[in-house]
Amino acid sequence: MKRSNRLVALTNFFLENPRKHKQLPYFVKTLNTTKSSISEDLDIIHTVFQSEELGYLKRVTGAAGGVQYIPEYSHEKSIQFTYELCKMLEDPVRILPGGYLYMSDLLGNPKTVREIGRVFASVFSQLDIDVVMTVATKGIPLAYAVASFLDVPVVIVRRDPKVTEGSSVSINYVSGSSRRIQTMVLPKRSLKEGSNVCIIDDFMKAGGTINGMINLLNEFNANVTAIGVLAEADDEEEERVVEGYTSLVKITNVDIKQNYIEVHPGNYKDKSTRT
Amino acid sequence: MKRSNRLVALTNFFLENPRKHKQLPYFVKTLNTTKSSISEDLDIIHTVFQSEELGYLKRVTGAAGGVQYIPEYSHEKSIQFTYELCKMLEDPVRILPGGYLYMSDLLGNPKTVREIGRVFASVFSQLDIDVVMTVATKGIPLAYAVASFLDVPVVIVRRDPKVTEGSSVSINYVSGSSRRIQTMVLPKRSLKEGSNVCIIDDFMKAGGTINGMINLLNEFNANVTAIGVLAEADDEEEERVVEGYTSLVKITNVDIKQNYIEVHPGNYKDKSTRT
Repeated sequence: MKRSNRLVALTNFFLENPRKHKQLPYFVKTLNTTKSSISEDLDIIHTVFQSEELGYLKRVTGAAGGVQYIPEYSHEKSIQFTYELCKMLEDPVRILPGGYLYMSDLLGNPKTVREIGRVFASVFSQLDIDVVMTVATKGIPLAYAVASFLDVPVVIVRRDPKVTEGSSVSINYVSGSSRRIQTMVLPKRSLKEGSNVCIIDDFMKAGGTINGMINLLNEFNANVTAIGVLAEADDEEEERVVEGYTSLVKITNVDIKQNYIEVHPGNYKDKSTRT
Repeated sequence: MKRSNRLVALTNFFLENPRKHKQLPYFVKTLNTTKSSISEDLDIIHTVFQSEELGYLKRVTGAAGGVQYIPEYSHEKSIQFTYELCKMLEDPVRILPGGYLYMSDLLGNPKTVREIGRVFASVFSQLDIDVVMTVATKGIPLAYAVASFLDVPVVIVRRDPKVTEGSSVSINYVSGSSRRIQTMVLPKRSLKEGSNVCIIDDFMKAGGTINGMINLLNEFNANVTAIGVLAEADDEEEERVVEGYTSLVKITNVDIKQNYIEVHPGNYKDKSTRT
């Protein structure tokens, strides 16, 4: 195959298979070329990925060597995206009765969801994560977006057990905002003991739901390796029960009377990319 | 920018922005080159996309002309994927009490989910679809995968209204398998009147749930443009209440005693790609 055609085929391969480690002979064979040509192709792709801030090709030399694409936004590009999110969320049309914010349009846009996933995957890029976990319903698309860039599966915690998932482990937890006792269920089959888990959710107030997920993970002897929430609410009256999370935006004020919303970048802004 | 670098950047653009129509001057400017060079680049990308069966670049000449990437698997490639799905589903370890099939591992794999989405998007490629709709919970990742390839948003029907979504329209429907009356809710804001809707779900038995979604769409004066279900159960005792759907696989027999599952390609197999 000619170089120009190879570059298109290889770029597609890396974008469709983030983090997949492949040895060079695989490409030599499938693209019918030489090792040195592939090596030059990889240099070109790496350079463009870097300049377009899409991440980089990680190459390992030696017998077991090969290449993998690490999708990783720069800290600056991620921050820029969080500012765009803030702007979108500050639209007063979003105010709902009770001071809630309508976010379903944002979370219903596959492109926005994918970008959010890419930012979280960038933040957690250097961590050893086996699986992404979320609780139904709104966190699900975000969890898949993060998982697709980390190349790991998703497990979904439910609030009600389903017959179609077999036996499950359930816990009770106290929802931070309503102080009600709620239930959380995870099918036994869906998570291996000792897994390193990244928890993803769309929204966090006091953190009761995320705390519930942490307790559930204890039942599976699993480790909480990372916690990512799209939006946290800054509520001084309530004490936060979760630590060590990364938030992209922080909703600091929803004033129904004045029809005004204030949203700032979350704590991610003050972290460096390499955690 | 040099051709080799341009090809990587352009391939990334098309894969990240399926169906997005762009005029050539956009690329001439961002890639700092000439129109004829871009035109040659597009020819190369189109050729590779076709030979790798990823779809094609659709080009329109004239004043408002431009290019867009249509992700579309060939019918053969889609069928091949459905056979792989059948094989994965026929593993007897999946049998759960009550004759249900454990599918959460498949639906928890972002890559598998993305492939399923790509196949549905290929089947519905020539239809005019404004939005993909599904019902919580299991259909959600599939709906996002389909929507990402069709470049449209997702709306999620719930079984319980949420305060954070504002006023909503609800309907009652009879679940086909349990004959129970159930409720379905869609926030008013989430769907425009007259939208062309593609319904996606993971599983269909008699079709009560999908029928419920169709009734809900009537309340929004929306049109059911397409219906896609990953797996249908072939149950001769029950009459199907939904017509005009596309299924990827059909579960024809779950024999608990013999520990045996039979799964065949769904009705998609007998359709042509261009519907």
